[in-house]
Amino acid sequence: KKIKVYVVDGYKVARNVGMGPRVNTILQTCFFAISGILPIKEAIEKIKEAIQKTYGKQGAKIVEQNNAAVDQALEHLFEVTVPDKVSSEIVFRPPVPATAPEFVRDVLGEILRREGNSIPVSAFPVDGTYPSATTQYEKRNLALEIPEWETDLCIQCGKCVFVCPHAVIREKVFDRTLLKEAPNTFKHMDASWKKEFPGMAYSLQVAPEDCTGCTLCVDACPVVDKAEPTRKAINMTPQPPLRDAERKNWDFFLSLPEVDRTALTLNLKNSQLLQPLFEFSGACSGCGETPYVKLATQLFGDRMIVANATGCSSIYGGNMPTTPWAVNQDGRGPAWSNSLFEDNAEFGLGMRITLNKQREYSEELLHKLADKIGKEEVQALLDADQSTELGLQKQRERIFDLRKALEPFKTPEAKNLSSLADVLLNRSVWIMGGDGWAYDIGYGGLDHVMASGHNVNILVMDTQVYSNTGGQASKATPRAAVAKFAAKGKEVRKKDLGMIAMTYGNVYVAQVAMGAKDNQTFKAFVEAESYDGPSLIIAYSHCIEHKIADSPNLEKGLQQQKLGVESGFWPLYRYDPRRIAEDKNPLQLDSKRPNGKFEEFALNENRFRILLKKDPARAEDLMTLAISDINSGWSQLEQLAALDYSLEGVG
Amino acid sequence: KKIKVYVVDGYKVARNVGMGPRVNTILQTCFFAISGILPIKEAIEKIKEAIQKTYGKQGAKIVEQNNAAVDQALEHLFEVTVPDKVSSEIVFRPPVPATAPEFVRDVLGEILRREGNSIPVSAFPVDGTYPSATTQYEKRNLALEIPEWETDLCIQCGKCVFVCPHAVIREKVFDRTLLKEAPNTFKHMDASWKKEFPGMAYSLQVAPEDCTGCTLCVDACPVVDKAEPTRKAINMTPQPPLRDAERKNWDFFLSLPEVDRTALTLNLKNSQLLQPLFEFSGACSGCGETPYVKLATQLFGDRMIVANATGCSSIYGGNMPTTPWAVNQDGRGPAWSNSLFEDNAEFGLGMRITLNKQREYSEELLHKLADKIGKEEVQALLDADQSTELGLQKQRERIFDLRKALEPFKTPEAKNLSSLADVLLNRSVWIMGGDGWAYDIGYGGLDHVMASGHNVNILVMDTQVYSNTGGQASKATPRAAVAKFAAKGKEVRKKDLGMIAMTYGNVYVAQVAMGAKDNQTFKAFVEAESYDGPSLIIAYSHCIEHKIADSPNLEKGLQQQKLGVESGFWPLYRYDPRRIAEDKNPLQLDSKRPNGKFEEFALNENRFRILLKKDPARAEDLMTLAISDINSGWSQLEQLAALDYSLEGVG
Repeated sequence: KKIKVYVVDGYKVARNVGMGPRVNTILQTCFFAISGILPIKEAIEKIKEAIQKTYGKQGAKIVEQNNAAVDQALEHLFEVTVPDKVSSEIVFRPPVPATAPEFVRDVLGEILRREGNSIPVSAFPVDGTYPSATTQYEKRNLALEIPEWETDLCIQCGKCVFVCPHAVIREKVFDRTLLKEAPNTFKHMDASWKKEFPGMAYSLQVAPEDCTGCTLCVDACPVVDKAEPTRKAINMTPQPPLRDAERKNWDFFLSLPEVDRTALTLNLKNSQLLQPLFEFSGACSGCGETPYVKLATQLFGDRMIVANATGCSSIYGGNMPTTPWAVNQDGRGPAWSNSLFEDNAEFGLGMRITLNKQREYSEELLHKLADKIGKEEVQALLDADQSTELGLQKQRERIFDLRKALEPFKTPEAKNLSSLADVLLNRSVWIMGGDGWAYDIGYGGLDHVMASGHNVNILVMDTQVYSNTGGQASKATPRAAVAKFAAKGKEVRKKDLGMIAMTYGNVYVAQVAMGAKDNQTFKAFVEAESYDGPSLIIAYSHCIEHKIADSPNLEKGLQQQKLGVESGFWPLYRYDPRRIAEDKNPLQLDSKRPNGKFEEFALNENRFRILLKKDPARAEDLMTLAISDINSGWSQLEQLAALDYSLEGVG
Repeated sequence: KKIKVYVVDGYKVARNVGMGPRVNTILQTCFFAISGILPIKEAIEKIKEAIQKTYGKQGAKIVEQNNAAVDQALEHLFEVTVPDKVSSEIVFRPPVPATAPEFVRDVLGEILRREGNSIPVSAFPVDGTYPSATTQYEKRNLALEIPEWETDLCIQCGKCVFVCPHAVIREKVFDRTLLKEAPNTFKHMDASWKKEFPGMAYSLQVAPEDCTGCTLCVDACPVVDKAEPTRKAINMTPQPPLRDAERKNWDFFLSLPEVDRTALTLNLKNSQLLQPLFEFSGACSGCGETPYVKLATQLFGDRMIVANATGCSSIYGGNMPTTPWAVNQDGRGPAWSNSLFEDNAEFGLGMRITLNKQREYSEELLHKLADKIGKEEVQALLDADQSTELGLQKQRERIFDLRKALEPFKTPEAKNLSSLADVLLNRSVWIMGGDGWAYDIGYGGLDHVMASGHNVNILVMDTQVYSNTGGQASKATPRAAVAKFAAKGKEVRKKDLGMIAMTYGNVYVAQVAMGAKDNQTFKAFVEAESYDGPSLIIAYSHCIEHKIADSPNLEKGLQQQKLGVESGFWPLYRYDPRRIAEDKNPLQLDSKRPNGKFEEFALNENRFRILLKKDPARAEDLMTLAISDINSGWSQLEQLAALDYSLEGVG
């Protein structure tokens, strides 16, 4: 067929000219060189004109980098001679491993091979439910570099595990005797949990084929080698040489037992020993949203029900064909669904009300069948304290015993109770989505759900823009930022969703930024979930749409979160209605007074910087207003947090 | 045809037994007596059983009244002997007067005669626009009693005019010489405006055939005859003896010139000399909503554009066939439209944005055509101060001159400018509706409009329940009140829409209750309209759905507003963002600390009282919570109003 094959190491060229992983200009140049559509000299002229037009307003540096990329592209383009007949002995890996479950192999695997059209309808689940925990079979090998662990420096803080957007770094504490079976290169050290796990081993393991190479883990690592200050307890290193060994290490790591949840005191550090039930999603490398989702699954995943709004999170959370929502060794994990953009809060409220009704009915049945089950057993099921992992574990055992006790009885009531019994374990209902949903399109429903007083947990992953559709302004977009539909910089203030929610008085509200204060984020999740009423967590989520300088993989996302919080752009707080009953002010501020450096934060992001190029006078006006928003907002928060709540008896 | 005719003076019976105007039980009894469907004794037994069932939970008194009504009904039922041939000389009045405009006579009049089906399609406006100011032709003669004015007592305060829900009481100040033409019985006195209108006459006039007899005017009258304490400056008196004379007086009154708007200092008293452009609506007798609508039209009606949400206000505001929205002698009046329940705020925002665009285009054209129009004239049109009635008047004259100046030029640009010229006069955009719209179904859009920063005025007539559909709970329904879908008393707190709106910082917000503090209501309307940004007025609107004791015509609506405000159930305040620029706290409280008498207020209304009968324990719990809502809400407001706004420079 007279086929011709060319190769170019686009990443090398891009790296050479300082463009990180961006290869579009390079590949474009190669295309014109090979295809001959235009004379190559004319093509290069046109490409450079296009570069000026597209990137000109982003500054001279970016234009120069792109021009250099064009110039170097052809030097790195090589033709591969095609032999007369097939001579290679390399075989394509199957899309999913042969050890994967049948459905994954025969359906999802076929879709991954782009042979989805050939699957018969009969192969699909009849009721639309879809197995979860399937991203683990899709080894994408995206990363050129992956993190490597240094046991001589690590302090086992778990911060790298906490921030990882794809749940590819994990830690376990385990019995040393299990190391007998470990591969040679498997790393470990003594566990530092002297009280809970004396004499045990600790390991931090990377999933080499699932990592996306974002480097957030390295950024989050607090330890530096004094002798070699660029070396941390975790460092990026090329993936290919490590791949095979680390793949085996990862498999071995997975075979080690998960931690006993009931043995842990619940704190930030310990929480990272808990298995994430959200892994290897298709979110962007370095995504600022997924660490929050993952944290929720570590804490509550084995009894979680999720209503997911349309947006990035419904795409990376329910992408065809694989699903990042996962299950633990007992097969328990989040039940997940996505309805419409405009009704997600209501959708989740329906889940809550259904559970309440099922619980009510199961209680009725328990009373009716008490003679058969045993009065004491019934009372124990009804009165169970489920506020701790131990309490939950005991209730699970009671439910198991209940089912056994019901088995001999074939009445409809006994069958119904057996079928419903799981609702006797407290479920954790989560309503999740982005700011486009929560601030705009689904806000009417969000408000209605908050006003309802029902026990649901609302997680708003606030990227301050419609991210999934390409960066349109939402009511969460801050003043002075450029976005689609706000091309001249957003003119009005960011909507203060947290303040609005606080007006209800019976809504738990937290504003968090995991990159700025991980422990506050952790506390907020635990408090929100434990509150028997509506809870709202507004989570700062850095995003590619912020166009953070020198961060094609969002490498500086965490640093921007920190600068955002320190500048007062994103104050951290928690509002807990339970404190009102104690005559305490429900609002607690968790960050410090603005440090006056909003511009430093903002000018690291092209969404703000671009206006300075396009319209400096307007940029300056809007920045001044944005700074005034920060100062007046903080002043109000500070004064609200100082209000006296012991004055109930006014009348 | 062997027709039989019976008459019963149902109102007399109802009055006798203390049931006000409620005649349903009486007519029911007569029906069974005449029809013979059941033996009359048995029928009466069944009716009394039904009374017990329907009204039992409202208390023994109401049951007794109804039983007494049944017993007396038959005594007042008389047969009218039908003569062999027509002997009467009384002729039906035409549905609208012969002097009405053609469209009113031929189309609206036919519909009123229930002959709408016979009107050809060609008689209707082709573009769906509908003439306004047509309720004036539909003389409903609903009232058994109407107010009569006492010139010896009146202090010309205008309060009766202010509160009248149907704009049937009006006042004018006029030249004494005009009295020559007055009918004999036309009443007048010396005008008390010594400064503005020295030596002029004053008259207060009732429209006898449009009044609904609600008595709010009498309740609002602050003057009492010391010699005869039940006599006020306005008192209810039977309508039929007055009707003919007062009809002539009303027509004469209408022929008197309207006040010169530019001659008035704008204050509450003077505002009631302004012509209402909303009159004789089909709202309930004593309606708590319409006085607010009327006030807005007095102040801004001649340049007002209204987006009306679905609900009571869209029904009484756009009822077939007549329209209460009216025009002044120049033909200027509100332009009104109703879209859907869920998009009214957006609908109104579209009106605003359209006006802005038209204004922008007309300014472009002014600049382009400056040579033809005159540079000075153009500048005057562009720079016009339109903050006063005088300024508006001058701009109207400029626009008139502009059109004249454009007339000789036949270019498209000149024609376009002439067509658009009216937008050079500032329009007043109003977005109106009830709480079902604003707190619930249309809230997502309301929020979006508030966040937009655009110059619109939002009026929420808060009856705290879906009134038009029969009393379903909304998020505005207060804790402890019974409503449909909250049959056991509303469990959660009323949503605090005002507090939510205040979180934006750039929204003017006022909470008002015209029955409690009319001057505060007046101020709020003027401030809201003058603010160049979004304004929100939340207006307490008493309603038949509150089931106020002894108030079938809402006679005690104003008193309940007052008790509601005094008890702290409905705090009055104004939040004006313009004050922030002056380092002042934007929030001003306009009512006093709760007086501890919430129960006194609540127990006057059956929506609260009914729960005490049905479930006393729950009622007590909810009332306790409701009182705590009031106290904590007030405490927070008071502290918010005391926040220091001079601390801008935190950073």
